[in-house]
Amino acid sequence: MIKETKARSVLKSVTWRICATLTTFTLVWIFTGKLDTAIMVGGLEAFIKMAIYFFHERLWIKIKFGKKEIEPFVLWFTGLSGSGKTRLAEEVAQRLEKFSLKVDHLDGKNIRKVLHDTDYTRMSVNDHIMRVGHLASKLEDKGVFVAASFLSPYRESRDFVREICTNFIEIYVATPLEFCEREDIRGLYAKARKGEIKNFPGVDVDYEPPEHPDWVVDLSQKEISDAAYEIVRHCKKYL
Amino acid sequence: MIKETKARSVLKSVTWRICATLTTFTLVWIFTGKLDTAIMVGGLEAFIKMAIYFFHERLWIKIKFGKKEIEPFVLWFTGLSGSGKTRLAEEVAQRLEKFSLKVDHLDGKNIRKVLHDTDYTRMSVNDHIMRVGHLASKLEDKGVFVAASFLSPYRESRDFVREICTNFIEIYVATPLEFCEREDIRGLYAKARKGEIKNFPGVDVDYEPPEHPDWVVDLSQKEISDAAYEIVRHCKKYL
Repeated sequence: MIKETKARSVLKSVTWRICATLTTFTLVWIFTGKLDTAIMVGGLEAFIKMAIYFFHERLWIKIKFGKKEIEPFVLWFTGLSGSGKTRLAEEVAQRLEKFSLKVDHLDGKNIRKVLHDTDYTRMSVNDHIMRVGHLASKLEDKGVFVAASFLSPYRESRDFVREICTNFIEIYVATPLEFCEREDIRGLYAKARKGEIKNFPGVDVDYEPPEHPDWVVDLSQKEISDAAYEIVRHCKKYL
Repeated sequence: MIKETKARSVLKSVTWRICATLTTFTLVWIFTGKLDTAIMVGGLEAFIKMAIYFFHERLWIKIKFGKKEIEPFVLWFTGLSGSGKTRLAEEVAQRLEKFSLKVDHLDGKNIRKVLHDTDYTRMSVNDHIMRVGHLASKLEDKGVFVAASFLSPYRESRDFVREICTNFIEIYVATPLEFCEREDIRGLYAKARKGEIKNFPGVDVDYEPPEHPDWVVDLSQKEISDAAYEIVRHCKKYL
């Protein structure tokens, strides 16, 4: 919530007065050819109008006309484990914040405080994604831009989230499996291959790629900062 | 997020011009005694300054000086089952919304979509309240005013929520047990007395009243609308 202080209105009145009185002074001088009249009119005007301007300004603060609420959107980053979606979402969130937008990055790491962890069965994963989706839509509804990075391998829960959000932008981080598995920063693929993790998308269950993503990016082919730049440029049309 | 449209700046320029040109016209007329000069200066001024005003206005939209962010707060309503806290919180939330604030009412009923239900053991209840608290603080952090109505019988979890929120206002809905139990709208007290519900605050476990609440209200003594009015009046000092 933004409140415009009286100090702002005062300073604005002063800057306006400088522009305006100089114009009046010049006009009167040109039309009357009399410098003293120009100074007198300009001087008196300066005082009177400064006050009028201030009250005009304060009145307009109460008028809602032409104050447009910018509709936020939910950027949903889906992709395999290790595809780079978390770092990409983080970078996009940071870039959006630079436009003075309220942005929240929802990710497995920071969501645990709010939502319970679940296991990897299709039902539990879908359940978790639907809860995250509810949270995202709640934030969106209150004017917060959301960048959500979740593996979210199953179409039905992603489609559910699309339904409940107002402006849902699905970003498919399509880094190939071989690349994700070769990097395997957290060693999860190795564990999944050994059967220590069950239902691991790309290993023993399928990752279901989005059928109509709004944006596709392969982070084995593109730098994260470049990808983030392009996504933000794409999103700017919604602002 | 609020964006000021060009249409707003145009209309504002016009209303200002009416105030301002009338002043200039009157001043020039008084000082020169010539109606034609007054009309000429006033007329030319109207055109030139309308444009200058518009650009002055658009420039100021980019200036952040004096735009004060209103800090939201979390109103936490705690009290026995049937004490009226949900209806009170709802009424307070509605009244706050009238000040063009973004408000969210968190309550058992609407939180289930986001958070898992838990049982009534002290640990589960505390766990649940802490998760709700995290959600409340997340919303507060993003500029949303929160009215949260939860039985929240245990001091440690309420104190935890107080810690993680920036502006936490604890409202103790101190409607007496006898009154709550006599009404027993949802039949929960009857079930608890029969032992069908365990760990029911006020029946087989204690409700721990706040030691330093910010506001106390007994809804067996006061109408909800009056109580809501007083709470909102109390909160207005934070706006």
